[in-house]
Amino acid sequence: MNIRVAPENLNEAAKQAISVAVVGATGAVGVEIRECLEKSGLNLSTVRLLASKRSAGQRVPFAGGELVIEELTDNSFQGIDYALFSAGSGISKAFGPKAVAAGAVVIDNSSAFRMDEAIPLVVPEVNLDVIPAQPGIIANPNCVAIIATVPLAPLNARHTIRRVNIATYQAASGAGAAAMEELRLSTAAYLAGEHYAPKVLKHPYAFNVFSHNADVNPQTGYNGEEEKVIEETRKIMRRPDLHISITCVRVPVLRAHSMAVTVEFDEVVSPDEVRAILRDAPGVRIVDDIEANHFPMPNEASGQGDVLVGRIRRDVGDPSGRSIALFLAGDQLLKGAALNAVQILQRLVG
Amino acid sequence: MNIRVAPENLNEAAKQAISVAVVGATGAVGVEIRECLEKSGLNLSTVRLLASKRSAGQRVPFAGGELVIEELTDNSFQGIDYALFSAGSGISKAFGPKAVAAGAVVIDNSSAFRMDEAIPLVVPEVNLDVIPAQPGIIANPNCVAIIATVPLAPLNARHTIRRVNIATYQAASGAGAAAMEELRLSTAAYLAGEHYAPKVLKHPYAFNVFSHNADVNPQTGYNGEEEKVIEETRKIMRRPDLHISITCVRVPVLRAHSMAVTVEFDEVVSPDEVRAILRDAPGVRIVDDIEANHFPMPNEASGQGDVLVGRIRRDVGDPSGRSIALFLAGDQLLKGAALNAVQILQRLVG
Repeated sequence: MNIRVAPENLNEAAKQAISVAVVGATGAVGVEIRECLEKSGLNLSTVRLLASKRSAGQRVPFAGGELVIEELTDNSFQGIDYALFSAGSGISKAFGPKAVAAGAVVIDNSSAFRMDEAIPLVVPEVNLDVIPAQPGIIANPNCVAIIATVPLAPLNARHTIRRVNIATYQAASGAGAAAMEELRLSTAAYLAGEHYAPKVLKHPYAFNVFSHNADVNPQTGYNGEEEKVIEETRKIMRRPDLHISITCVRVPVLRAHSMAVTVEFDEVVSPDEVRAILRDAPGVRIVDDIEANHFPMPNEASGQGDVLVGRIRRDVGDPSGRSIALFLAGDQLLKGAALNAVQILQRLVG
Repeated sequence: MNIRVAPENLNEAAKQAISVAVVGATGAVGVEIRECLEKSGLNLSTVRLLASKRSAGQRVPFAGGELVIEELTDNSFQGIDYALFSAGSGISKAFGPKAVAAGAVVIDNSSAFRMDEAIPLVVPEVNLDVIPAQPGIIANPNCVAIIATVPLAPLNARHTIRRVNIATYQAASGAGAAAMEELRLSTAAYLAGEHYAPKVLKHPYAFNVFSHNADVNPQTGYNGEEEKVIEETRKIMRRPDLHISITCVRVPVLRAHSMAVTVEFDEVVSPDEVRAILRDAPGVRIVDDIEANHFPMPNEASGQGDVLVGRIRRDVGDPSGRSIALFLAGDQLLKGAALNAVQILQRLVG
């Protein structure tokens, strides 16, 4: 699970009881946030699980006991120290400021505030220092931006990256629990020779691949997901000048994102040096066994918190020798969302 | 199906009866070759279907009648004008020269002769002119190289391409019929909550993505599939100097390959001009509907012969403005193998 602060190592501050609210507690990410909180070692005096009226009253297991889902209202944040939002931009915009006004620190998994200059956009391994002493809202980045920056930032810290090119292999989970279910149901229908009309996503998902479902900007040809990754990667890495291009593609995988990445440095850097830097990088696990043909795969990235990195080689297509090719995989629901948010919480407390 | 020469348009030569042998007639590609031959409009006096002893005697439908699979032997090519091989490099090396000695022209789908300087490596839309007047063996390229060069070659003919970067989304079919069945069976087992031990491929395939199964060269870090695409693309496009890099990845798709491609030209070329060139390019169909979020997908590429091209946009990661990003999809079994071979046959005859 890679919750970085093991209970026995928590300092005294972290042992202080805190009250936490989870907004969107029944969604794909909300379920993972609950599980990350259980495993976090944090001393939780209150865990308030908030969702829409429809889910209110539902009972869910938590830490050996049971919690009741409550309806999200203006009064939900009384007495809450930290509120983790994962219910879409609209909810975050409407209720995030209210949670802050009620005295909570908000860790927001939506895109609502990410590009707001006043809001820190945080990957704990990369830029924890941007969180101010008295934080209000802290934004949790886009899943692809998190998974990409965990290995890219330590490389950039040693050798300036000039340009990045990414092609993604994105899982259904990024489109929510309903999309994951659509992938399962449509695949079962396909195997049974039955017709399945897509309900959640626009295109057939069974044994199919399609360009990411976010709207495409007709001016640039880039879709909203690609624009987020480009902007957020620059902000997280504090490299507004970084040249970055990306093609975001959905593949029929349930919950981990993979990506083929080409990194061009300002100077020649050897694959061995890249490997050495990444070996020491927090949150990175090198999976690069040429003999066994064993490289990062979404099935092995799922359910754990590291970003797997492999296929580390000199890009033979760059005549300057300054480019390195990589293949990554990371759990979209964990490091790409819930785990990153809970790791931010741990750092705030601990 | 995109068999380019419609029966009514065949010239007199094409109406001449020819005798054709198919080696590997029961494999994933062999089945498609039979179907392409049926639809080719060619006047086939003899169709001899050859396979291993194990398959001999099997009866298969052909053109309204039935044919019996025969065992491949040294005498299989007596009286054969054209032999289409698709049974692996070993069989091609052992029997290809025998077929030529018996007077047949060989169209070989294996990698056995592709990089032999004396052997033409042909994509009909691109380099038909490399076939000599009295051909012996003609090599059918790697599936990714075919699908990539159909749009890249006409672009390169107008504006010199300096560099190409590709990330593939490759289907099971490239690893054969058994791999396609493993994808179906392992996915059904996954959905049923049952364990499935991979038999054909090294890694679990259900809802998973993995680096291509070809062996990886420990010197370069590139796998055999990637090396083939690099070398063959240069040969087909007659651009030995082309800078090209590729990451080959298998995705859980049955029979069509997709790829994210970045093309760097020697000069600035607009997306509109790329679109205009590709609109007139043989074998290309533009699928680039930004409003409907409708771009090339393997499910729509399957069962037809065009290479679908979309996501045509200026690569925002290249500060020089000389790079264009594309997304392609093409049927691996048809244009990537069987159809390309039968199109070569049509051009030889017609």
